[in-house]
Amino acid sequence: MAKAKSRKPKPLFERVCFIGIGLIGASMALAMRREGLADAYVACARRPKTLKTALKLGIVDEATSDYAKAVVGADLVVIATPVGTNGEIARIIAPHLKKGAIVTDVGSVKRMVIDSVAPHIPKDVHFVPAHPIAGTEHSGPEAGFAELFQNRWSILTPVKRTSAKAVAKVADLWRKIGAKVDTMDPDHHDMVLAITSHLPHLIAYTIVGTATDLGGDLKQEVIKYSASGFRDFTRIAASDPIMWRDVFLNNREAVLEILQRFTEDLTAMQRAIRKGDGATLEDHFARTRAIRRSIIDAKQA
Amino acid sequence: MAKAKSRKPKPLFERVCFIGIGLIGASMALAMRREGLADAYVACARRPKTLKTALKLGIVDEATSDYAKAVVGADLVVIATPVGTNGEIARIIAPHLKKGAIVTDVGSVKRMVIDSVAPHIPKDVHFVPAHPIAGTEHSGPEAGFAELFQNRWSILTPVKRTSAKAVAKVADLWRKIGAKVDTMDPDHHDMVLAITSHLPHLIAYTIVGTATDLGGDLKQEVIKYSASGFRDFTRIAASDPIMWRDVFLNNREAVLEILQRFTEDLTAMQRAIRKGDGATLEDHFARTRAIRRSIIDAKQA
Repeated sequence: MAKAKSRKPKPLFERVCFIGIGLIGASMALAMRREGLADAYVACARRPKTLKTALKLGIVDEATSDYAKAVVGADLVVIATPVGTNGEIARIIAPHLKKGAIVTDVGSVKRMVIDSVAPHIPKDVHFVPAHPIAGTEHSGPEAGFAELFQNRWSILTPVKRTSAKAVAKVADLWRKIGAKVDTMDPDHHDMVLAITSHLPHLIAYTIVGTATDLGGDLKQEVIKYSASGFRDFTRIAASDPIMWRDVFLNNREAVLEILQRFTEDLTAMQRAIRKGDGATLEDHFARTRAIRRSIIDAKQA
Repeated sequence: MAKAKSRKPKPLFERVCFIGIGLIGASMALAMRREGLADAYVACARRPKTLKTALKLGIVDEATSDYAKAVVGADLVVIATPVGTNGEIARIIAPHLKKGAIVTDVGSVKRMVIDSVAPHIPKDVHFVPAHPIAGTEHSGPEAGFAELFQNRWSILTPVKRTSAKAVAKVADLWRKIGAKVDTMDPDHHDMVLAITSHLPHLIAYTIVGTATDLGGDLKQEVIKYSASGFRDFTRIAASDPIMWRDVFLNNREAVLEILQRFTEDLTAMQRAIRKGDGATLEDHFARTRAIRRSIIDAKQA
């Protein structure tokens, strides 16, 4: 039917269901719509307000809080909720998944998601674990925008039993909505992200917390003079609390390992300050400039 | 003479001398020029290349590497070099300062600057310690731009003997180039800045260092996937190494005190992750959102 109405090529998917329609889910839906990648868009979320917003903003065509109903007939299911919920969601939707459907996710942790989701997925359904490296400090469907993934990486972490054809289709989807695609071993992904994302968020949350605990006057001054460095941390520390709680609970080992290294390095800096060791400080501060240059060169600045 | 050529009001200063013409000095000069706040602009710096750039870009009219000559005839001298050099500079320029001149600075640390500069300043010269809360990760005169101080705070930390008239004139200067002006006790300034600026920079330098020490492949991946949080730290950690070395050496006590609090808080986060204590993590992450909102409300985001 869709064909008769349009001369556009056949979309990649007939019916796509987003379980969770926050920043990432909504941005994916908007980007897929822009590119005409599916015939119908369904959202499933627990909160009626979220669904109402997603419908009102034209992000999806249908909305329901019933996980089982939501996935019926969908040839693509995108799980885009905090990673701690993914296993239970997979268990609930599994019996209702369409034969041949692809289930994918967008979680910031991959090993735990694979271990909790994959066992529930029926043999005739394909699970393709994915993680787009994109986001803002805002949450909810109203925060979504179609350009979020433009020039950003999306990492696929297929495991042995993952169908190569399904992986190719999910990769195609990400490329069509502007992302560059990489594949990676799930455990390696979790270590890379522990460094590039999880530790920076933990530290930003911590320093903003340290400032929040200050007495009244000092706290007001921290806000007033935040342009001197602090405000960059507050942006990161304004990210979704539930999402980040789940990241730390589900990537514990890698986060603790990199945190240990960071703490050792911080102790060395502390010692240099205490001893008045200017040479060590200057040497360290000069070294870190080079990595900024590399990021600018990699067009990720 | 200037009066005859222009119907503009009399400028605030006749001759202003910048000792150090990096990001802050150059931005001040450009902003003062835009507002017509002085008749002549002089730069003094050690490196010929810096002076050449400042002249070529029209930031100043005259340039010299001779501190003593530079200040002759100037009714405003702005010391805008790394804070560790300020005392020695004050000692060198002191005998050459014009009677009634104002000496000011832009250092990120105020107690040590006052203690090292003030004793050299002649009785008939006014020293007004100042610190504009503005900057970028770029350095050198070529990084300067007239809008840097727009809507940012400049904190004056006068001491007992500081002339109220001189303070008012420096405050007027900052307001005319777009800044909002506050006055503060020097020690209190150093504590507020330790929290809002010095600790964030120390942490950013440390985490970028931790990543720099990683093995080759992992390091390349950190650069590639830096958009997930890490890159915000690399921007801060690309700031001028010498300037920051001097900040930490000269605000040691306040930095070590706030670093101690941060380390305790980080240990608590580490423990929560190790124990799988999701409630503590979520509670902490939710609290820090509020402070971001306050910064946005204060128009400092």
